[in-house]
Amino acid sequence: MSLLVVGSVAFDSVETPFGKREKMLGGSASHFSISASFFTNVRVVAVVGGDFGAEERAVFENHRVDMTDLEVIPDGQTFRWFGRYEYDLNVAHTLDTHLNVFAGFQPKLSDGSKGARLVFLGNIQPDLQRDVRQQIPNAELVALDTMNLWIDTTRKSLQKAIEIVDLLIVNDAEARQLTEEPNLIKAARKILSWGPKTLIVKRGEYGAAMFTKDAYFAIPAYPLESVFDPTGAGDTFAGGLMGYLASQETLDEAALRRAMIFGSVMASFNVEEFGTERVQRLTQEEINQRFSEFKRFTNFEEIPFERAVKAAR
Amino acid sequence: MSLLVVGSVAFDSVETPFGKREKMLGGSASHFSISASFFTNVRVVAVVGGDFGAEERAVFENHRVDMTDLEVIPDGQTFRWFGRYEYDLNVAHTLDTHLNVFAGFQPKLSDGSKGARLVFLGNIQPDLQRDVRQQIPNAELVALDTMNLWIDTTRKSLQKAIEIVDLLIVNDAEARQLTEEPNLIKAARKILSWGPKTLIVKRGEYGAAMFTKDAYFAIPAYPLESVFDPTGAGDTFAGGLMGYLASQETLDEAALRRAMIFGSVMASFNVEEFGTERVQRLTQEEINQRFSEFKRFTNFEEIPFERAVKAAR
Repeated sequence: MSLLVVGSVAFDSVETPFGKREKMLGGSASHFSISASFFTNVRVVAVVGGDFGAEERAVFENHRVDMTDLEVIPDGQTFRWFGRYEYDLNVAHTLDTHLNVFAGFQPKLSDGSKGARLVFLGNIQPDLQRDVRQQIPNAELVALDTMNLWIDTTRKSLQKAIEIVDLLIVNDAEARQLTEEPNLIKAARKILSWGPKTLIVKRGEYGAAMFTKDAYFAIPAYPLESVFDPTGAGDTFAGGLMGYLASQETLDEAALRRAMIFGSVMASFNVEEFGTERVQRLTQEEINQRFSEFKRFTNFEEIPFERAVKAAR
Repeated sequence: MSLLVVGSVAFDSVETPFGKREKMLGGSASHFSISASFFTNVRVVAVVGGDFGAEERAVFENHRVDMTDLEVIPDGQTFRWFGRYEYDLNVAHTLDTHLNVFAGFQPKLSDGSKGARLVFLGNIQPDLQRDVRQQIPNAELVALDTMNLWIDTTRKSLQKAIEIVDLLIVNDAEARQLTEEPNLIKAARKILSWGPKTLIVKRGEYGAAMFTKDAYFAIPAYPLESVFDPTGAGDTFAGGLMGYLASQETLDEAALRRAMIFGSVMASFNVEEFGTERVQRLTQEEINQRFSEFKRFTNFEEIPFERAVKAAR
């Protein structure tokens, strides 16, 4: 058992300029674990209601997602999110949120889960993130995601949570808001001073960047001509990243770099269709193909410029 | 004689949160040619007034910029720009513009200039860009820069100018405005259908991307902890890019990729100090060092994921 995710399992209803879907399987833990399942076995810690049926269960089963710690409250309803995107797909407009059983979520970890090598603390209330983190003191790498809501409402608790993880994964607006520092490089330095060894910043259509004390790594995004539904892109990115890391013996800088590419590859597929539809039917070959494309469109030869040599020709 | 630039030579007065400078040497042709001079000999076509003195002339001379086609109108005043930046350095606020001698600018090319191998049509009125382009029918590569002003006021003429160049260099907002297409990949496809073989899109702190019919290339920006004065960054980028190309025998895809890195390197230095101050005293070693850094912070190993192999370990 290698990778554990704590987060939300939800039903999403999404409208975009290109169509709409009712009650799709969504939530951070769903997007994360389906994405990660292409690289490793995933164990999900979440809560659902009695409306989480055979169809949804089958999706997790098909991707070998371990549901031992998926708590079911038969009398309750699963978390629902209703959202809309305009032509600018970078901005999600929340129409409605029904927390339902998610409102009382208290993550409960079985012994199997407590032995996880890698942990992803998805975007939930930071007190809960800290609680889970403390139940797995021996994990080799613990990553944390968050959102502006928790920066606004529970900043102190969030900062304490960040202090005790190895890797923070946020978008650039969140990194700036968290540190109150408009320059991303300075914001990164500040976050690393709090405790995490690594910061990964998601930049949407502009790619992603990774900061450690000694190194910097940055990649552009996969070029997409049509983005259909960006819901879950960040969790799908994290799933590819953490799933790939879980498959590696050594979690060094080189592995982290490749993991960022795999994360970006998975996110690029995610946004091409509604919900998890595209990612669900991915093949390993398609993933590797897009990984190779990343190499092709970022590669250049390192030939220092020497004026004298050129002039002599 | 290899590289020609047509554009503005100006005196800039700039205020930023970090300080201010009066009457610095500026303008697209100045930033471009000083940057390009580190890679090749540059010939500048521009107009100045009697206030363009020995000090400014010395800057160009020190960088071996050929001033044969730098027209001097002794009774006139050089183009002046007065600008201010707030903490968000991405947005330039124009306080005042005195076109002065630039208002009647009619580029005049000597025979030497007409033999240029590479041409950069800096950001000036598109009719003038077309006029210059037609005077150099045999150039191997002609690049064009523009700005939102010309898209707003002279769209038809601008599009005709774009149709007869090889390379368009714009920022992403301009690419979208020009094509009325919010998706950059679609915008790029449209621009390439108009005539240019290559489109390079500048994305400020997010880097740059290059589009051709068959290929895509994208790079992040050099990570800067403090940006001091972004004035001229785009022209400095173009100068490094075109200057490097001029030094190469073959203008193929691989050379264009390296040229984008050199352009980004030059732009990263430009914004570290006011005006052309930092670029003026650059060394070839500093340029190559930063080029190598680009390789280090963008490089990753291409190892396809194979679950079976990993699981067997």
